[in-house]
Amino acid sequence: MRRELYNILEHEDETFLSKAYNVLMLLTILISLIPLMTKASLPVLTIMDHSTAIIFGIDYFLRLFTADLKLKRGKWSFLIYPFTILAIVDLVSILPNFLMFNSSFKLLKIIRMGRMLRVFRVIRHSRNIEIIRNVIREQKEALLVVAGLALSYTIITALLIYNVEPDSTFGTFFEAVYWVTMSLTTVGYSDIIATTVLGKLITMISSVLGIAIIALPAGIVTAGYMTEITKKD
Amino acid sequence: MRRELYNILEHEDETFLSKAYNVLMLLTILISLIPLMTKASLPVLTIMDHSTAIIFGIDYFLRLFTADLKLKRGKWSFLIYPFTILAIVDLVSILPNFLMFNSSFKLLKIIRMGRMLRVFRVIRHSRNIEIIRNVIREQKEALLVVAGLALSYTIITALLIYNVEPDSTFGTFFEAVYWVTMSLTTVGYSDIIATTVLGKLITMISSVLGIAIIALPAGIVTAGYMTEITKKD
Amino acid sequence: MRRELYNILEHEDETFLSKAYNVLMLLTILISLIPLMTKASLPVLTIMDHSTAIIFGIDYFLRLFTADLKLKRGKWSFLIYPFTILAIVDLVSILPNFLMFNSSFKLLKIIRMGRMLRVFRVIRHSRNIEIIRNVIREQKEALLVVAGLALSYTIITALLIYNVEPDSTFGTFFEAVYWVTMSLTTVGYSDIIATTVLGKLITMISSVLGIAIIALPAGIVTAGYMTEITKKD
Amino acid sequence: MRRELYNILEHEDETFLSKAYNVLMLLTILISLIPLMTKASLPVLTIMDHSTAIIFGIDYFLRLFTADLKLKRGKWSFLIYPFTILAIVDLVSILPNFLMFNSSFKLLKIIRMGRMLRVFRVIRHSRNIEIIRNVIREQKEALLVVAGLALSYTIITALLIYNVEPDSTFGTFFEAVYWVTMSLTTVGYSDIIATTVLGKLITMISSVLGIAIIALPAGIVTAGYMTEITKKD
Repeated sequence: MRRELYNILEHEDETFLSKAYNVLMLLTILISLIPLMTKASLPVLTIMDHSTAIIFGIDYFLRLFTADLKLKRGKWSFLIYPFTILAIVDLVSILPNFLMFNSSFKLLKIIRMGRMLRVFRVIRHSRNIEIIRNVIREQKEALLVVAGLALSYTIITALLIYNVEPDSTFGTFFEAVYWVTMSLTTVGYSDIIATTVLGKLITMISSVLGIAIIALPAGIVTAGYMTEITKKD
Repeated sequence: MRRELYNILEHEDETFLSKAYNVLMLLTILISLIPLMTKASLPVLTIMDHSTAIIFGIDYFLRLFTADLKLKRGKWSFLIYPFTILAIVDLVSILPNFLMFNSSFKLLKIIRMGRMLRVFRVIRHSRNIEIIRNVIREQKEALLVVAGLALSYTIITALLIYNVEPDSTFGTFFEAVYWVTMSLTTVGYSDIIATTVLGKLITMISSVLGIAIIALPAGIVTAGYMTEITKKD
Repeated sequence: MRRELYNILEHEDETFLSKAYNVLMLLTILISLIPLMTKASLPVLTIMDHSTAIIFGIDYFLRLFTADLKLKRGKWSFLIYPFTILAIVDLVSILPNFLMFNSSFKLLKIIRMGRMLRVFRVIRHSRNIEIIRNVIREQKEALLVVAGLALSYTIITALLIYNVEPDSTFGTFFEAVYWVTMSLTTVGYSDIIATTVLGKLITMISSVLGIAIIALPAGIVTAGYMTEITKKD
Repeated sequence: MRRELYNILEHEDETFLSKAYNVLMLLTILISLIPLMTKASLPVLTIMDHSTAIIFGIDYFLRLFTADLKLKRGKWSFLIYPFTILAIVDLVSILPNFLMFNSSFKLLKIIRMGRMLRVFRVIRHSRNIEIIRNVIREQKEALLVVAGLALSYTIITALLIYNVEPDSTFGTFFEAVYWVTMSLTTVGYSDIIATTVLGKLITMISSVLGIAIIALPAGIVTAGYMTEITKKD
C-alpha cells in the first residue's frame, strides 16, 4: 500500500491516479496564490488560504511517510528527508499559515512571502528546463566573466556618478547603483536622472556599454545552444 | 464561368484579371482602415467605411459561390466554407458595418476593433512568412520553456513586489504584473516606480534577468535559423 | 595636368598630394558642421560656414572638370556627371549657402538640413562598410519579412489602442503609432502612457513581442555573418 | 630575500604567503572603496581611507624595490618601472590622499575620482577576461565599422533634431547628442522628449535603428565566439 502511494506521489504520468494527483497539486498551488493577489480581506480568501495549506500539509506528511522508498537509506531516510531542499521548500511554504495566529501584523507581511515558494513546486514537475540548464552550465565560466565585468563596471560607475553629481540627484550610494543598473540594462526609469554634463556623459557611455552587455551573453548563449544541438545529432 | 471567377479569386499572380483583383483588394483594405485612424466624423469617412464594407461583402459571397472548387467536397463545401478560419475572419470584419445601425454608442467602439481583422487578410496574400514560421515551429519547445520561465518569474516577482511596496505604489495586482513586465522587457515606462529599497532591489534583479530573457530566445532563434539555412544547402 | 588632378581627387591614398587632399576634405566637412551645432550667431561661425562652402564649391567644379576621366564617356561625361548620385549630394550640400541670402527665416531652418548631407561624404572615403552591407544584402528577404511583420503589428496595435484608450491619451493617430513604436523597440519614453487596463494589457503584449522583434533580426544577421566568414575561409 | 619578496608580490597562487598577500590586497581595495560610498564624514571612514592608502603606498614601494627582477633590465628597471601603466595606476590611486591636506574643497571632489582607479587593480589579478578579449580583438574591424555607423548616425540625427525642434527642447547641441544616444540604445530617459511631429518621427526611426545597432554587434560577437570555440576543439 505504501509502495502504491509512493508511485502516485512520484511517478507522475504513469497511472490515472498519479496523473490526477499531479493535476490536483497544480490546481492547489494556483488557488493558494489567489489570496496573495489582493489586499482585500474577504472570508472566501481566508478559506482558500487555509484549505490549500491543509492539502500541502497532507502532501508533506505523505512524502515523509514514503521517504525510505525514495531515498533508499532504510530507517535513516525519515531523518534525512526533512533536510532535503525540496522538503524544506515544502515546509517553509506551509509554515506561515500555522504561525499566523500568534504573530503581529507587521511580521505577517514578510511571512506571506515565504508562501511564494510554493510556486517553485511547479518546476519540480517540469523536465524541459534541463536543456536550457545544460547550455548555462557549459558556458558558466564565460557568462561569469561577463557578469564580473558588468558588476565591476556598475560599482566603478556608481562611485564615479555618486561623487560627480550634486547631492540632490542621489540620496544614497544604493540609489547610484540602482541608477547605473537602469542605464546598463537600457531600462531607463526616469525617477533618477543625471543633471550635470559629466553625469550625462556617463549615462551615454553606460547605455552604449549596455548593448555590449546584451551582445556578449547573447553570443555566448547562442554558441552554447548550437553546440548542444550538434551534440544531439 | 465559375471556374474563371475562382481562378481570379485564388490564383493571384497568374492572369491580368487576378493580379488586378489582388491589387484592388489590397487597396480596399488600406482604405477601409482610414476611418479608424481619426475620431472626426466627416461624411467622406462614412462613405469610405460603407463602400469598402460592400466590396468585402461581394468578395465574401463570390468566395462562398466558388467554395466547391476550393474545398473539393461537392455540395457540402457550401456548408463547410463559412466555418473555415479565413471565412470567419472575412465575415467578422464586415459584420460591424451591418450591426452599427441598431447598436448603442458605447458598443460601437468595441465592434470597430472587429474590423481590424481585415488587416490579417494581407497575410493571406504573402508567402515569405513561412520561413520565419519554420524556425519558430522547430524551436517551439525551447521557446516555450523560456516563455514559461519568464511567466513564472513575472508572477512570483509581481506577488513579491505587490506585498512589499506600500499600497500607494500599486493599486491592483494587475499593476504589479504590468510593472514587472515593463522591467523584464527593459521598456521602463515611468508611471509606476518602486519606492522602497527592497522594491528597487527587485527592479535591478528584474532588469538584469531581462537581458537573459533577451539572450535566451535570441540564441535559440539564431541556432534554429542556421540549421534551416544548412538544410537548404 | 588634368590627369594628375584626377589622381589627387580620386586615388586617395597613393601619392602624398592625394593623401593631403583627402585629409583636407575630411577636416572641411568637420568644420562645416560646427556652425550647425549651436544657435548662437557669432561672426566666426559665419566665416566657418562660408569658407567651407567655398572649398566644397571648388571641389565640385574640379570633379566636374575631370568627369570624362572618371566616367570614360568622352564629352558626354560632363553632362552625365551632375546627375550621378554623389554629384547631386555634393551640390545639395553647398546650395543652401548660396540660397540663404534671399530666403525668409523659417525656410532657412529647413535648408540647413540639406547641408547635413555633407556628412555622407565621409562614407565615400570608407570601404569596410561593404562587409556589413553584404550580410544585409544576402539576408534582405528574411529581414524584410521581419520588418513587414513589425510594421503590420504596429499599425494593427495603433488602431486598437487609439480606439480603446480615452481621447485624452492620444491626440492623433500618429501619436498612437509613435507610442506603439516606443513599446515595441523597448525605448519606453513616458510622455504618452496607456491609462486603461486594456491599454496596459496591449503595452505588455507589445513589449514582450519587442523581444521577439530583437531576437529575430539578431538571429538572421548572426547566421548571415557566420556564412560570410565561412565563405572567406 | 628580495627574490622571495618578488615571488610573494607577483606569483600569486603558488605559496601560502603569496596567496595571503593576494587576499590582503583584494580586501584592502574593497575597504578603500567604502569611504567613497557615503557623503557622511565619520572618523571611522577617515581611518579606513588613510590606512588603506598607507598599505597601497607600501605595496608601491615594494614593487619598485623588486622592479629589476620583473623587468630584467638591470639598474635601469628602477627608472623604467614608475612609467609602466600599472605603476602609474598604482601611484594615481594613492596620490589624492597625500594631496588632500593642502587642497580646496572643490578640487577635492575631482581628486577623489582618481582613487577609483584602485578598482582596476582587481583586473590585474584575473585571467578569464582573456577569452572575451580574444573575441573582441578578432572581430575588432567589424565592430569598429558598426561603431562608426552608429557614431555617424548619432551626429547626423543630433544635428537634424537640434535644428528641427524648438529651442525649449534642447538647450545645447550636447543635449541633442545625449537624446539621440538614449533613443538609439533604447534606454529612453524621459527628461528630454521630442515635441514636434518631425521630432517624433526621428525618434521612431532612431529606436528602430537601435534594434539593428543591437543585432549587428550581437551577430558579430556570436560568430566570433563560435569560431573561438571551434579553434579550441
